Amino acid sequence: MSTKKNNEKIKVAICGGSGYTGIELLRILSGHPQVIVKAVTSEKSAGKSVGTLFPHLHKYSNLIYEPLDKTGLLKKADLFFLALPHGASQEAVNFFFSKGKRVIDLSADYRLSDPIVYEEWYGLPHKYPATLKKAVFGLPEIHRRNIRKAKLVANPGCYPTSAILGLLPAIKVRLIDVSSLIIDSKSGTTGAGRKADLAVSFCEVNEGFKAYAVGTHRHIPEIEQELSLAAGKDVTVNFTPHLLPVDRGILTTTYARLEKKIDAGMVEKIYRDTYKKEPFVRVLAHGLYPNIKNVKGTNYCDIGLKLNERTNTLIVITAIDNLVKGASGQAVQNMNIMLDVDETLALDTPAVFP
Amino acid sequence: MSTKKNNEKIKVAICGGSGYTGIELLRILSGHPQVIVKAVTSEKSAGKSVGTLFPHLHKYSNLIYEPLDKTGLLKKADLFFLALPHGASQEAVNFFFSKGKRVIDLSADYRLSDPIVYEEWYGLPHKYPATLKKAVFGLPEIHRRNIRKAKLVANPGCYPTSAILGLLPAIKVRLIDVSSLIIDSKSGTTGAGRKADLAVSFCEVNEGFKAYAVGTHRHIPEIEQELSLAAGKDVTVNFTPHLLPVDRGILTTTYARLEKKIDAGMVEKIYRDTYKKEPFVRVLAHGLYPNIKNVKGTNYCDIGLKLNERTNTLIVITAIDNLVKGASGQAVQNMNIMLDVDETLALDTPAVFP
Amino acid sequence: MSTKKNNEKIKVAICGGSGYTGIELLRILSGHPQVIVKAVTSEKSAGKSVGTLFPHLHKYSNLIYEPLDKTGLLKKADLFFLALPHGASQEAVNFFFSKGKRVIDLSADYRLSDPIVYEEWYGLPHKYPATLKKAVFGLPEIHRRNIRKAKLVANPGCYPTSAILGLLPAIKVRLIDVSSLIIDSKSGTTGAGRKADLAVSFCEVNEGFKAYAVGTHRHIPEIEQELSLAAGKDVTVNFTPHLLPVDRGILTTTYARLEKKIDAGMVEKIYRDTYKKEPFVRVLAHGLYPNIKNVKGTNYCDIGLKLNERTNTLIVITAIDNLVKGASGQAVQNMNIMLDVDETLALDTPAVFP
Amino acid sequence: MSTKKNNEKIKVAICGGSGYTGIELLRILSGHPQVIVKAVTSEKSAGKSVGTLFPHLHKYSNLIYEPLDKTGLLKKADLFFLALPHGASQEAVNFFFSKGKRVIDLSADYRLSDPIVYEEWYGLPHKYPATLKKAVFGLPEIHRRNIRKAKLVANPGCYPTSAILGLLPAIKVRLIDVSSLIIDSKSGTTGAGRKADLAVSFCEVNEGFKAYAVGTHRHIPEIEQELSLAAGKDVTVNFTPHLLPVDRGILTTTYARLEKKIDAGMVEKIYRDTYKKEPFVRVLAHGLYPNIKNVKGTNYCDIGLKLNERTNTLIVITAIDNLVKGASGQAVQNMNIMLDVDETLALDTPAVFP
Repeated sequence: MSTKKNNEKIKVAICGGSGYTGIELLRILSGHPQVIVKAVTSEKSAGKSVGTLFPHLHKYSNLIYEPLDKTGLLKKADLFFLALPHGASQEAVNFFFSKGKRVIDLSADYRLSDPIVYEEWYGLPHKYPATLKKAVFGLPEIHRRNIRKAKLVANPGCYPTSAILGLLPAIKVRLIDVSSLIIDSKSGTTGAGRKADLAVSFCEVNEGFKAYAVGTHRHIPEIEQELSLAAGKDVTVNFTPHLLPVDRGILTTTYARLEKKIDAGMVEKIYRDTYKKEPFVRVLAHGLYPNIKNVKGTNYCDIGLKLNERTNTLIVITAIDNLVKGASGQAVQNMNIMLDVDETLALDTPAVFP
Repeated sequence: MSTKKNNEKIKVAICGGSGYTGIELLRILSGHPQVIVKAVTSEKSAGKSVGTLFPHLHKYSNLIYEPLDKTGLLKKADLFFLALPHGASQEAVNFFFSKGKRVIDLSADYRLSDPIVYEEWYGLPHKYPATLKKAVFGLPEIHRRNIRKAKLVANPGCYPTSAILGLLPAIKVRLIDVSSLIIDSKSGTTGAGRKADLAVSFCEVNEGFKAYAVGTHRHIPEIEQELSLAAGKDVTVNFTPHLLPVDRGILTTTYARLEKKIDAGMVEKIYRDTYKKEPFVRVLAHGLYPNIKNVKGTNYCDIGLKLNERTNTLIVITAIDNLVKGASGQAVQNMNIMLDVDETLALDTPAVFP
Repeated sequence: MSTKKNNEKIKVAICGGSGYTGIELLRILSGHPQVIVKAVTSEKSAGKSVGTLFPHLHKYSNLIYEPLDKTGLLKKADLFFLALPHGASQEAVNFFFSKGKRVIDLSADYRLSDPIVYEEWYGLPHKYPATLKKAVFGLPEIHRRNIRKAKLVANPGCYPTSAILGLLPAIKVRLIDVSSLIIDSKSGTTGAGRKADLAVSFCEVNEGFKAYAVGTHRHIPEIEQELSLAAGKDVTVNFTPHLLPVDRGILTTTYARLEKKIDAGMVEKIYRDTYKKEPFVRVLAHGLYPNIKNVKGTNYCDIGLKLNERTNTLIVITAIDNLVKGASGQAVQNMNIMLDVDETLALDTPAVFP
Repeated sequence: MSTKKNNEKIKVAICGGSGYTGIELLRILSGHPQVIVKAVTSEKSAGKSVGTLFPHLHKYSNLIYEPLDKTGLLKKADLFFLALPHGASQEAVNFFFSKGKRVIDLSADYRLSDPIVYEEWYGLPHKYPATLKKAVFGLPEIHRRNIRKAKLVANPGCYPTSAILGLLPAIKVRLIDVSSLIIDSKSGTTGAGRKADLAVSFCEVNEGFKAYAVGTHRHIPEIEQELSLAAGKDVTVNFTPHLLPVDRGILTTTYARLEKKIDAGMVEKIYRDTYKKEPFVRVLAHGLYPNIKNVKGTNYCDIGLKLNERTNTLIVITAIDNLVKGASGQAVQNMNIMLDVDETLALDTPAVFP
């Protein structure tokens, strides 16, 4: 870790720090030379040491979970990560934002720019539409410029990150028919959160595999919002999530009909060109496909391409770690951009393979 | 096991009995009251006892692997299961068939009725086109009547079984646009066979997930052949297989654009009607989805349905055990049909869950 | 399944039928030709069909969970399996037993013959010491004769079954020093039961391994009771359970100092002789070791032996399926003995391997 | 990574860089600010880029595997890591050592100080006994002072590291009877190496668990050598390794009879005192037990303690990552000591949990 003195570092707080995205933020930030975690909240674990509850975070033995006292937290940090449940985040984000703090919200509450769409999919009204207007969707590969000056970043969902990064280059050059998009995603079980729930108990998940929330998952409007923006017209997608018996990783396989004749080399070039300056997107050679195992614990998004000429279809396959590029890693990437420091700080360690 | 005397039982031989489909045949047949396994071949394991090599098959302690001596085998059995590698099966099938034996071939060699398509996908010519013409594609849900009188059954591939059973009802009633079929399959690792291969070593597969052979897998022509038959016109499909870090199971998620307006109840009815007499197909209520864990070790195919009205798409999800309904169980089902005994003999044990 | 008419079959009821041992009883009994399950209880799932809740048990679509109404159940069945939590079982067992029913109790409540030892380890007094005296410890390899005439069988714990079967032959011939016993056990996660509990959630268990309840597990007095009986003197054991990231299986590695000089062949002979008539114990050749994968879903106990002359130690390794020989399978074996039918009925299917 | 210029960094080479320990060295060293990998050898992968073969190591895209040309390598590096097979390492170590290079050998060839013991367990004579005499056994917790000035460090085996760290404190204070040691170890599958081998194929290992090489494993003499040194007398141990269906991690459970009366607090104090200055040993409170999941990918050794007064036994449980503290991490720790830099450089990242 850096030898910089603590009092020179940026002070951050994590609200909701005992779930998987919360402890992943702590893990990543433990290697950040310019940031210090000054507070972390958890109602259930209040009073306990992070290092005791999570032995892998023994570096935080002196950091104690505290209840979410928003006013009390104000003086402790300059930047707030919120990893609270959807809905609960609305108010907390608005509070810290209104007090002039920088906020990175890992919930879904500020991702959908249209409050009507939000209400439609989340079943409750958005109480802070004015704040919502200030939020920037935190996918650096699309919105880096706005993230840089943002006070409030809505960190994307895990599935949307994997889907959007896969389809973006093809959509931008009008290569594919956006009315025919099929997004078939498979996620590791950390995606379901850290909870006591029979449905995610070991013996129910292990050696199993299933789809869920077919066509109804709340990440759908997020995907459609960003792809519509890229396409310049309304995009509607088929999205099917599946539950993989692994800890981490999302593999998303997308299918789209081609609008023009093209060869495989050209497809690869479009993807390489789009992402050539991106530190965390790795485009594989045409015909090679990513494996979630190669991105585990990292902020990378690996992309594989297949032009199927028999069927006139472009197949794009992306792999990310749902807790890193799909959540906490992307949040730190966004923080780095907001702070105008090296975007890869704390994020450039290789996967622990195998 | 049955108290019937051994000499009254049907005598069968298994050529290629030390791979995963071979030992699965032995496992299933060990519970069959009317069949006795008289010979099992393996070049590598010749001379060894089945029960010694595979402790779970200790009932076969006195059954010894022998080299594949076709002429010698003739007198030992009346019905032959062939679980030989593709290509190698061509000649052996022709031999036993030409000698008047009943043959169930688990390889791909006799599945494609058109020898030109075979050569195109398998890279070698078919040497026995006359025999090929006599082969029946062994999917009982489509070809039961022909299987009953067949001398040669080409047992379907695992992926094709899962894909065809899922799409068949919708295609038969012209519900879906067959030019838009997307078949996204995920298979357990036994699908790769029993072999010393770094690519399927534990540490490479475990906690991983990836696609392979995208748009080029050899099961594609098999799927297209049967779906074209059902559609009454040429069908071309997008097919993407993925490797799951589990022992057994295939989950196939298919997407098709709807040709007509319909409601969910009607879709479910179409599926229930199609399979109402099928002993091994279980149609779930609309909106419920199958899990491979519920079919592990069984011959069942579970089917889940989702009518997505937002996108005008029908999504069908099927789950089978790739080694049972996808291989050896279906082979025994075909045998039962050929022998005109109860089709479920040796096949109606519940999954070992969890 | 048998063609015997239902009204000729033995009627059984399962109290506590929605946990892993309960549904495993249902799975096994579904293949039993002489038994019919007439009732199954579950407070939480009352009113639901077994087949709906557990798709692999679709054969029981017409069997509905009901609340545990002891009096109402009396007329429904002749033999009762109790798979209730420890403590709760005390009264139910006493009730059915006092009404003249045959009872097989899968809880720990009637395993310890001394009520003082029971209270010491379970923290509550035994309210039915008179009934307790009538209970037979249901390990057929030791107590078959008494089981045959028993009205109440206390089905052994999973760890005790694996430990006792491994040590019994050596203790009976005074081969080992019983003051030095080390029992190191590793169990699959079904051993923890079916429950919503963070500690057994997929992401906590998967890719992990740990010991728990070291030297304090409640199965210790059970092991000591049976080994003391075999030794003819008080035996105290070191017992360490560990949690394996697999669904099923216990592997127990035991260490004991040798009391006499002996060779490996003789050790193997002692074990083979002890178990030569046992249908479910398979002694491997000296130097070969069992794998839980080979007994998964079966009632077998595989035993491996190693005479370590360098250290004067006998190492015995046993493998069972904790839900079968370690619970429900052994319960059915006990039932078969009590009913004086073939002891292997419903229990001789091979493992689903791999 | 550091901004230090490459030409100021220590130049290292890795001989045998395509196995699991080799790529783990590369992973760890990629985060080391004072080291640069100048060469990596592999006969099979010669000519291929590290980054291409192992996507998680894309930082090494310009590092190309080369054949092991010892003379050619001499000028490329100052310090050599050897991750060659046992036996093959003998000569290479001697070569680099005799040319004045610093060598860290991850094979077993220089671990056993007595060449006769080496020959006894490895079946071949040691050809360089003079060099062997100069080798220091690279367990920093015992031999740090000698490692600091060593030119040749024999990096310990994975099992010995876990066993020795667990037993050392108790032996040093004469707390336990060293004639009664039982070491029951369970290792993840990376311990078997990276290879095409049916025995480690996914479907054979997954959902399985077994012991192997009981009482005959080659790590036994290594454990005995170091424990004898600590005890001041000859120690003989029972050692049983088992294969866990996880990628990484060793959990070792040891049992020893107590020589004196002691209480739990005092045992914990002995362990804490022994390791109080050790950066990579974490002693848990008495009665808490480690989980391999908490040390995955890290150089930590977590230790749990249980004083069993009923049986007069001390049980010590250790958890390490077999590829890190059990191999490549410890090698880097040794390198840091030899180079007299901060011992934790490149080694203080938290585990990726879950």
